[in-house]
Amino acid sequence: MRPISLASGFARLGALSVLLALGARAQGQTDPLPSWNDGATKRAIIEFVQATTDKANPKYVAPEARIATFDQDGTTWVEQPMYTQVIYCLEQVHVLAQKKPELKTVEPFKAVLSDDREAMAKFTMKDLEKILGATLTGMTVDEFNAGVKRWLATAKDHRFKHLYTELTYQPMLEVMKLFRDNGYKTYFVTGGGQDFVRVYSGSVYGIPPEQVVGTAGATQFGYDKSGKPTLTKVPKLLLNDDKAGKPEGIHLMIGRRPVAAFGNSIGDRQMLEYTGAGDGARLMLLVHHDDAEREYAYGPTSKVGTFTDDLMAEANSKGWLVVSMKNDWKRIFAFEGN
Amino acid sequence: MRPISLASGFARLGALSVLLALGARAQGQTDPLPSWNDGATKRAIIEFVQATTDKANPKYVAPEARIATFDQDGTTWVEQPMYTQVIYCLEQVHVLAQKKPELKTVEPFKAVLSDDREAMAKFTMKDLEKILGATLTGMTVDEFNAGVKRWLATAKDHRFKHLYTELTYQPMLEVMKLFRDNGYKTYFVTGGGQDFVRVYSGSVYGIPPEQVVGTAGATQFGYDKSGKPTLTKVPKLLLNDDKAGKPEGIHLMIGRRPVAAFGNSIGDRQMLEYTGAGDGARLMLLVHHDDAEREYAYGPTSKVGTFTDDLMAEANSKGWLVVSMKNDWKRIFAFEGN
Repeated sequence: MRPISLASGFARLGALSVLLALGARAQGQTDPLPSWNDGATKRAIIEFVQATTDKANPKYVAPEARIATFDQDGTTWVEQPMYTQVIYCLEQVHVLAQKKPELKTVEPFKAVLSDDREAMAKFTMKDLEKILGATLTGMTVDEFNAGVKRWLATAKDHRFKHLYTELTYQPMLEVMKLFRDNGYKTYFVTGGGQDFVRVYSGSVYGIPPEQVVGTAGATQFGYDKSGKPTLTKVPKLLLNDDKAGKPEGIHLMIGRRPVAAFGNSIGDRQMLEYTGAGDGARLMLLVHHDDAEREYAYGPTSKVGTFTDDLMAEANSKGWLVVSMKNDWKRIFAFEGN
Repeated sequence: MRPISLASGFARLGALSVLLALGARAQGQTDPLPSWNDGATKRAIIEFVQATTDKANPKYVAPEARIATFDQDGTTWVEQPMYTQVIYCLEQVHVLAQKKPELKTVEPFKAVLSDDREAMAKFTMKDLEKILGATLTGMTVDEFNAGVKRWLATAKDHRFKHLYTELTYQPMLEVMKLFRDNGYKTYFVTGGGQDFVRVYSGSVYGIPPEQVVGTAGATQFGYDKSGKPTLTKVPKLLLNDDKAGKPEGIHLMIGRRPVAAFGNSIGDRQMLEYTGAGDGARLMLLVHHDDAEREYAYGPTSKVGTFTDDLMAEANSKGWLVVSMKNDWKRIFAFEGN
């Protein structure tokens, strides 16, 4: 009986192998970008990742060189009607005024504190800088982090009635995960404040603080009354991480040229150009906001996230992918459900 | 007979298990720091790594927080009689003069080009800045990298007759590897030029460019004649990564407080203080150069790598480890052999 029993044993083993193989195949077929509609853009992203991680492919990229950079505002979360960080700063003026009541009589703080929308709409860059300076500097790094964390826990967007950290684009979260699952280091390269974004980049996007490149101010080392070392945020700009500042920031903080870069506006043009100028396989992508119903539609005339015709022409001539949020994305936010 | 056969099978399996276990144990006993003499310092380093990676230990550190920062000059390679990068810059003046012969008549270049040691010994900080500016800026990042690579391939230290990249301290390479093998990200936090160190940090130390924090100048994005994007090194200092600049640089580039920090001079004091001020387990270590025979002996009066009595007192009072190169290190360089 033993040969038969062995045979039936092998048969069982055989069935198991088939099941395992089927399982593996099923897993291999799992759609890594389920929130994307099938089409050329989705296919190009998946094929790029497959090609650059396949040693037999001429497009193969060594693991240590797998760097993918993402703009944040407008690329991985909502930036309209105003950058989230600017909303934070405006709301912090009220917190600040509790400690410094004299601000109530000083512009531009007076306008913010009295909710004078007309005056706020006329704010100059200098006014805005005063508000950013007052709310983003003058405290220790730890105090700043705690303040941002506290605010993010409850502050909601007026249109969507969701926490700002819930206004992330599900399709882009899937792209980030697809790249990471294939050995890419994902970085933020954002015009937003480096320290601001670092507070939530880990929990919201899976990007650790050391992989956030952003507009950065200096800190000053010192000691508190008990002699404990502290770092205080001071109003000295080290990196304006926008436009030409993006490749400059990438060099400063990463020191390697990205293999893939994702943006949505003229602020990202130079990052995509710099990425595209490297040898070997490259992927450049711009998110185009053309979905007023589900999110926003804006382009050349928008102050926030400007997407000029010129940029569109460059994208087309250089083969950069342009995502139509309306057509390419099955859903935009996780809270929409499946 | 089957039960017996099974039993003998299990017996064989049992023997195999024991062999495997023995193998594992033998591997566990492999000395991770073979170039260190047995003693309190070596024991403290190994115990720190074991404790912070053992989930059952109250000193456990989560994998994402495992950041270890290393000074370079004098901590992981030789810094006497002059920093390697300064030697590079002085030698580059000759290369520069081939393109710009007018330098032969202009100080401080004239002194360097005529090898006027007396004049060079009197160089002011301003003279040195002129030389660093002329040799570290004004070229694209790619040109700079190629130049450093070319120089490092042949330039040798006069005393040891070895390439500068071979003047690394074997015991510190072992410490770096021990930390990495236990899930730590190892960073350089060096007063040396960030771009300079990045050229060889990967091949020499296993530290990728994105984990090099150093003194950093700005770059400027632009396009070459063919329209290709370029980054040009410009003479604008963004970060002086020395003394207080070290914790400031750590915040700028990493955004987390290190768990372990390694240095050798007063330039590392603030980095060690900042590291030590965090909660939970911390390891701070200073390399003390007390071995004139095998390397160099220097301390309070040395211009390069100053180690004051004050720093020693602080190290002792705060429980920082102080390495005696003479007593703690079995060998200093890999080329010494075993």
